[in-house]
Amino acid sequence: MNLRSPGPTPCPEDVLQAMGRQMIHHRSPAFADVIGRVTEGLKTIFETKNDVFCLSASGTGALEAMTVNFLSPGDRVLVVSIGVFGDRFATVAETYGADVTKLDFEWGTAADPQAVEDAVREGGPFKAVLVTHNETSTGITNDLEAIAAAARRGQPGVLLIVDAISSLGSIRCQVDEWDLDVVATGSQKGWMVPPGLSMVAISERGWKAFEESKMPSFYFDLGKAKDFLAKGQTPWTPAISIFFALDVALGHLVKEGVDAIIERHQRIADLTRSGIKSLGLELLADEQHASNTVTAVQVPEGVEWKTLYQMLQDDYDTLIEGGQGPLAGKIFRIGHLGWVSDKDIDLTIDVLRQALPRVGYAVPAASRAS
Amino acid sequence: MNLRSPGPTPCPEDVLQAMGRQMIHHRSPAFADVIGRVTEGLKTIFETKNDVFCLSASGTGALEAMTVNFLSPGDRVLVVSIGVFGDRFATVAETYGADVTKLDFEWGTAADPQAVEDAVREGGPFKAVLVTHNETSTGITNDLEAIAAAARRGQPGVLLIVDAISSLGSIRCQVDEWDLDVVATGSQKGWMVPPGLSMVAISERGWKAFEESKMPSFYFDLGKAKDFLAKGQTPWTPAISIFFALDVALGHLVKEGVDAIIERHQRIADLTRSGIKSLGLELLADEQHASNTVTAVQVPEGVEWKTLYQMLQDDYDTLIEGGQGPLAGKIFRIGHLGWVSDKDIDLTIDVLRQALPRVGYAVPAASRAS
Repeated sequence: MNLRSPGPTPCPEDVLQAMGRQMIHHRSPAFADVIGRVTEGLKTIFETKNDVFCLSASGTGALEAMTVNFLSPGDRVLVVSIGVFGDRFATVAETYGADVTKLDFEWGTAADPQAVEDAVREGGPFKAVLVTHNETSTGITNDLEAIAAAARRGQPGVLLIVDAISSLGSIRCQVDEWDLDVVATGSQKGWMVPPGLSMVAISERGWKAFEESKMPSFYFDLGKAKDFLAKGQTPWTPAISIFFALDVALGHLVKEGVDAIIERHQRIADLTRSGIKSLGLELLADEQHASNTVTAVQVPEGVEWKTLYQMLQDDYDTLIEGGQGPLAGKIFRIGHLGWVSDKDIDLTIDVLRQALPRVGYAVPAASRAS
Repeated sequence: MNLRSPGPTPCPEDVLQAMGRQMIHHRSPAFADVIGRVTEGLKTIFETKNDVFCLSASGTGALEAMTVNFLSPGDRVLVVSIGVFGDRFATVAETYGADVTKLDFEWGTAADPQAVEDAVREGGPFKAVLVTHNETSTGITNDLEAIAAAARRGQPGVLLIVDAISSLGSIRCQVDEWDLDVVATGSQKGWMVPPGLSMVAISERGWKAFEESKMPSFYFDLGKAKDFLAKGQTPWTPAISIFFALDVALGHLVKEGVDAIIERHQRIADLTRSGIKSLGLELLADEQHASNTVTAVQVPEGVEWKTLYQMLQDDYDTLIEGGQGPLAGKIFRIGHLGWVSDKDIDLTIDVLRQALPRVGYAVPAASRAS
């Protein structure tokens, strides 16, 4: 299948085969080797010297871990939201008793750093600013470097907690250079690995907040994760097979190098956007902030998304995702992160060129000729 | 490697190969097929008509899910503990604000149902009784049927929350027949699947408690799990590859049938215990309650466990586990659940017969001759 979802993504054959390895014990030297190598590889791609931990849970588990380990009930936090995942981050923080101030931007646009600075300065002080780097629901990448700097101009030393689930490993996210405190991603995104692990980096400022945190946590207790990682272990039985997969995938990524990974995603995203425009379709996103991991496309007038979605799977063996929440039925989203080639995108555009006329959309003549 | 840990266990080749399958999307009909089949298979082995949910987390995540979904801060609960995992269950409940009364039994013995009845009657009323079915740290299986009945004699209708992580799928655990409300297990135990999923069954009484629960939860919110399972989905991206593995493993288990699975574990456990005794070693457990999934053996006088542990791996390619907590260095534990044969146990006993004299323990002559 041509799986063009923004996660899970297809995985290289050797990554999948790695999971065929027989079980080892998670408190044995064999596992310590794996987690040691994985942790170093992650630090390279995160561009950080901070601690990085793997949790046996998918990205939403990481959102929870980033909340309960660093905040206390009643803590005032600013959540910068530009879509479904920003809203989810706010809901998680509220669930555990944080006092959330929401700074919303129109879906399909990026957060304005100046507005973040103003909100922090005027509405603060805040314990933390929670922000989504790449909003998968709208295909927008926030200018995280600028937002981080803006938040710190508004309130020096404010804790920065970042959902980088669909950016890290695909889109530039310099954890140390941008002075980000808590940053998480998920294995099924740019990492070319099946879902089941999320990875979290924690700065020194993050550990200070951890010491003060009073929200309850057990499974996601990152203090325990730190104690056990020192022994080459995790506190609880980890998803060992996914570690095997991540180990192999990180081998590829570290060899490719961060700059090359970022450039590859930029090139493939450009190809996707120009392909979509060649079909006469409109992007949802303000193109200046269009994501290099997922492209959101407006469903053309008169086209029934559900019909197209099903037809793409049944007749073209291609899966692209619809919109979430208020965008359901209004947009579709093409994932182009992780293990993806120019050929995959060409195929996807070609499939759309064939399918769209069958659901009532006239593809421009120039595109049909191409 | 001869991996004789009480989890993770070795997995059959076709279960491992199933994880080589390319990713599918977790909100597609293809995944709905998988989770539908898996859920039905689990109900068969759980011997229940209750809802059963898969969480992308290992067993400790399930302990947390069984706490935060059904209790409220301040709720009085009785935790019956006979070892490390009973203690852990109490700690999880305390972490989230439950008012825990602990009923402890000596490690290496089983819980006395009469004592449970008395504790419930005299110390209650309790919102719930939390109990470990099979205590992996000591190799003891509680008489869960009797304990459940005793708790309900002490307080009719009291909620029963059961850690069946290392029993379900190996040791008889009749969820409906015994009227258990919330029962969880983990993929890396008798299920012959790598770690990364835990599975939780919930009764009608359990759902009533869910409605009243005020502990915060998000990633482990079982109400959301219920809503999404109705659509053949999970609320968050699941560990898809582990689902593939569980699907194949459940095919084997359902075909074998619950009775045959239970008998197989009984037979292999008997073989293990008689093998250990033939070496002149002593079991930790009161044999009447000895577990059919893990055998705890006293480290003989004068033997340094760490030396033996390392030697077994280096020279015999065999891994058995040491003791946990206060039992560290005092016992070792042989896992015999899931994908295990008589031959594996014969090999393990034979390896011990060879290794023990090298660390200062004289194996009885009768055993040397066998």
